[in-house]
Amino acid sequence: MAAAAALAAAEVDIVIPTIRSLDFLEMWRPFFLPYHLIIIQDGDPSRTIKVPEGFDCELYNRNDIERILGSKAWIISFKDSSCRNFGFLISKKKYIYTIDDDCFVAKDPKGNDIDAITQHVRNLETPSTPFFFNTLYDPYRDGADFVRGYPFSLREGVPTAVSHGLWLNIPDYDAPTQLVKPLERNTRYVDAVMTIPRGTLFPMCGMNLAFNRELIGPAIYFGLQGEGQPIARYDDMWAGWCVKVVADHLGVGVKTGLPYIWHSKASNPFMNLKLEFTGLFWQEDLIPFFQSVKLPKECVTAQQCYVELAKLVREKLSHIHSYFEKLADAMVTWIGLWDEFNSNKAGGAGLAASS
Amino acid sequence: MAAAAALAAAEVDIVIPTIRSLDFLEMWRPFFLPYHLIIIQDGDPSRTIKVPEGFDCELYNRNDIERILGSKAWIISFKDSSCRNFGFLISKKKYIYTIDDDCFVAKDPKGNDIDAITQHVRNLETPSTPFFFNTLYDPYRDGADFVRGYPFSLREGVPTAVSHGLWLNIPDYDAPTQLVKPLERNTRYVDAVMTIPRGTLFPMCGMNLAFNRELIGPAIYFGLQGEGQPIARYDDMWAGWCVKVVADHLGVGVKTGLPYIWHSKASNPFMNLKLEFTGLFWQEDLIPFFQSVKLPKECVTAQQCYVELAKLVREKLSHIHSYFEKLADAMVTWIGLWDEFNSNKAGGAGLAASS
Repeated sequence: MAAAAALAAAEVDIVIPTIRSLDFLEMWRPFFLPYHLIIIQDGDPSRTIKVPEGFDCELYNRNDIERILGSKAWIISFKDSSCRNFGFLISKKKYIYTIDDDCFVAKDPKGNDIDAITQHVRNLETPSTPFFFNTLYDPYRDGADFVRGYPFSLREGVPTAVSHGLWLNIPDYDAPTQLVKPLERNTRYVDAVMTIPRGTLFPMCGMNLAFNRELIGPAIYFGLQGEGQPIARYDDMWAGWCVKVVADHLGVGVKTGLPYIWHSKASNPFMNLKLEFTGLFWQEDLIPFFQSVKLPKECVTAQQCYVELAKLVREKLSHIHSYFEKLADAMVTWIGLWDEFNSNKAGGAGLAASS
Repeated sequence: MAAAAALAAAEVDIVIPTIRSLDFLEMWRPFFLPYHLIIIQDGDPSRTIKVPEGFDCELYNRNDIERILGSKAWIISFKDSSCRNFGFLISKKKYIYTIDDDCFVAKDPKGNDIDAITQHVRNLETPSTPFFFNTLYDPYRDGADFVRGYPFSLREGVPTAVSHGLWLNIPDYDAPTQLVKPLERNTRYVDAVMTIPRGTLFPMCGMNLAFNRELIGPAIYFGLQGEGQPIARYDDMWAGWCVKVVADHLGVGVKTGLPYIWHSKASNPFMNLKLEFTGLFWQEDLIPFFQSVKLPKECVTAQQCYVELAKLVREKLSHIHSYFEKLADAMVTWIGLWDEFNSNKAGGAGLAASS
């Protein structure tokens, strides 16, 4: 197990956006200590955020982002948890695990602490099955398999791009639902991991999310949100719609289910309503758009898919609001940065030093 | 609760195919007693099958089926559990629950007996959500809802056509998997019900299955299997592919998950291999066929959809084997019988008496 953890640690960066403090890391210490952490400090860069001792960690604030990205820093949102994108960009690891700073270690029904990151790595390292539904859920799990009637030609599965984990305690509800059900808590531990079928969109939450950065990283851009933008609290949704469309096109998989984290703090529903307001409207047009997106066969990498998607956003969504033109620009700029940071000649560190 | 059970009993028939005995009903007594049972005795009609005392029950053997359906009796399979179709045909109830005679009452993780039929009725009476995936599973369940990012325009859901229940203990594996994993048992209780998204096929097992007969009954024909046919053990799979395509076209939902039953007896894997042999081959062609089926807009009832599907089966599958021409004939005959048995002027009983 120790060897497996060390191997996994060499392949995973944990990316955490925060404006508050990193006290929540204390509870994760036994699980996160082997991993490298990339902390993105949102908000006022002059504030000091204390990193708990002993963690292998680098911390970036807004000044760092401006210095490193220069004139392209505008594509990293400010005062919104989508600033985590900077961490995805500068990582050199195969996998990213990103978690919010109000998420704690959950317990399984036997009362054991759940090692979320190990479960995510397992989800990412076993195949997905997006082309046919398996009624006993993840067929690659111990004690499970493909059921009678599952085509043999599909049993090898496809690589997994995304592992979407869930939340006990405070569920990820929108502001209207929070207002209507202020006391609802998620107490149901559903012991399953499943592939979301091809052609089906889902609401991807960024609280407890892992992905294969090498395979799909370019398509997980959380967009322009927060300060100066007409939309907030839709950063992860935007990334989820985009990444699902790209994953479906590339023939790779998106899983949801285990692991659970314990979500401690419901954000203020009145503030959320204000922040979500535009997104609640726009999603009724955005989802049909994403449901109808068809990417050309020539797009065979996540980068190519994402640039094509940016074109479609500009073409088909600009009539809703000029914001979508700006977003399309940001999407293209994001891919340019991704290529710079991930080319062999100019690594992130080199580029950072030269900026 | 008693009133609710009585109400449900007035709307549900339980259909059970059997060649052995009905001893398994003893364990179901507290749950099935309020319901009407339709027993289809498969195999030698001269054998006597004893019905446990106290159940409200009608029993049909092959002689009855021949007498009632006359020259059309050939479309009801012999020596195959797909003979249960006769029960679906003569029922007058809104819902059907069908269960195999080697399925017993399972226990939930707290050790309570699971009332499978009540859970199925709940699944059928609450909407489905086939157009967008909800990460907290069934949004209509107590303690759950639609998560952030779920479009409000889709939250009313659509009527539920099918409720596919699962199995603890012996999983529903095909013969090759049974041979490879003879000792594997399903011990994982996954506390979830979910809608299988539109456009995604699934392997529908007939062991523990409920459906809205009025809404989708005509599309749940288990086909020609068993004696005299080149295929067996694919009756429920056939019905599952057909019903999913028809449900997707009609915009109604198919759910899977709870309730579990306890599946006691693994059938003989060598015998199964012999029986499944053709199906294992054919499914590699049949599934792409069903994945590509498009029904015309003019088809607005399950009957119309099913007749259209029969045309496509004849047109696109006959090159595999002449069996599919015969199956297409049977599908059309099935719809004819359905209409006779379900028209206002000629009820099942009337037709039975006149045959």
